[in-house]
Amino acid sequence: MIIIGEKINGTRKAVAQAIRERDETFIRDLARNQTDAGSAFLDVNAGTAPEREPEDMAWLVGTIQEECGIPLCLDSANPSALRAGLEIVKNPPMINSVSGEKPRIEKVLPLALEYGTNLILLALDETGIPNTSDGRMKIVDRLVRLAMDGGLKEEKLYIDPLVTAISTGTDSALITLDTIRRISSTYPKCHITSGLSNISFGMPLRHMINRTFMAMAIQAGLDSAIADPGDRQLYEVIMAAEMLMGRDKYCQGFSRAYRAGRIG
Amino acid sequence: MIIIGEKINGTRKAVAQAIRERDETFIRDLARNQTDAGSAFLDVNAGTAPEREPEDMAWLVGTIQEECGIPLCLDSANPSALRAGLEIVKNPPMINSVSGEKPRIEKVLPLALEYGTNLILLALDETGIPNTSDGRMKIVDRLVRLAMDGGLKEEKLYIDPLVTAISTGTDSALITLDTIRRISSTYPKCHITSGLSNISFGMPLRHMINRTFMAMAIQAGLDSAIADPGDRQLYEVIMAAEMLMGRDKYCQGFSRAYRAGRIG
Repeated sequence: MIIIGEKINGTRKAVAQAIRERDETFIRDLARNQTDAGSAFLDVNAGTAPEREPEDMAWLVGTIQEECGIPLCLDSANPSALRAGLEIVKNPPMINSVSGEKPRIEKVLPLALEYGTNLILLALDETGIPNTSDGRMKIVDRLVRLAMDGGLKEEKLYIDPLVTAISTGTDSALITLDTIRRISSTYPKCHITSGLSNISFGMPLRHMINRTFMAMAIQAGLDSAIADPGDRQLYEVIMAAEMLMGRDKYCQGFSRAYRAGRIG
Repeated sequence: MIIIGEKINGTRKAVAQAIRERDETFIRDLARNQTDAGSAFLDVNAGTAPEREPEDMAWLVGTIQEECGIPLCLDSANPSALRAGLEIVKNPPMINSVSGEKPRIEKVLPLALEYGTNLILLALDETGIPNTSDGRMKIVDRLVRLAMDGGLKEEKLYIDPLVTAISTGTDSALITLDTIRRISSTYPKCHITSGLSNISFGMPLRHMINRTFMAMAIQAGLDSAIADPGDRQLYEVIMAAEMLMGRDKYCQGFSRAYRAGRIG
């Protein structure tokens, strides 16, 4: 499971304050903790006003890179902010994200192609998130074709099937799971990623619902998640689900994580 | 989810003692608690020596029926014990179980046909549990045909795909999940049931592994489980998984269970 650590996000109050005050210690701690907890990438979202965002993104990238060498996932809709990050990023980065929306395709996709980054593709367009897997696959097909025609290999694409709340649609999870299965069989070399927690919006017992959905999404073919790797119970379910899917020979990974005190 | 409450089982020490001492209160409490916790059937297994078993089974059935009207699942390989239970059982019962083993087919299956019971079919035979879904389906196909030729409707059949430990085979869960999917598509009117806890035998964090596997099995098509309905965390995952599979319109069942304090 390729975990994209989600916590360095300027829409979170404490992170916004740290960015404003240039609090390096706070950001470095967030980076270190998420790396130690098993992230493969760290999402970096400055979340600030467009005119400040390039400078804030560059500061975040620089600060995180002083702390650890983990690859970064530059998260913005603002091409200038993305470019500011791309120019100084050391390890092969990811961009979050290109959707079927025109500005993303015209302004963000070219950056991903120019720098040959990993790239998250979202199954939505100007009309929103389709409420059928057919509708989502139509967008995915178009985006994968555009990215590959531009020279990105399938292995660099992280397709997000998108998740809507079960409280607003009885079939919400089924649509996502079906989209995951279809991506998995149509593009076996692409990765499939998502932030799953939207599923439980408006419901009680959100974390439990999220964990249950994570197990089901992994079974359907999800191999990456935008998540908090420090959520110990979620991490346990990810380890268990991957083991049950036959990806942990002799249960060695699970047992090692248990002995090391990472789970349990 | 059709839960078959597993706790009235004479192989458990406290239950064995209650049977020996004819402790009606103990058995009635077990029956009441499992019924209140959401069982659809109660498994009844005397677990005693063959010569005592018919009398013990009859006492158990009589005692439980004084407490509550829930249907019973008579659990024995001993035709005399099964008949002793069948003769006094009030609600349409279930028999646990017929496998591909000759004595079960020759001695237990006829009882199920004679009384027109619900019937659990196990995907194993004299050679053990096949370690491919092909092998398990071959046995299932034969048993379903025998049961239906004998007059049982598909709706009365509860097929158990069987679960072996992940610690003894990296593909254990995959084989079970694949068997569930195949049963579900081949026999859409049959139920699919199993005791899932074998999956975690020999591993740490057994309950968490069991819950994760439950979510995946429900996604594959499991609609019944031999389980402890009083395991609150397991019950939560069952409720969540069924909701995510689109079987809980407007999340009403989940929300009601939460408000009633059954989950959370």
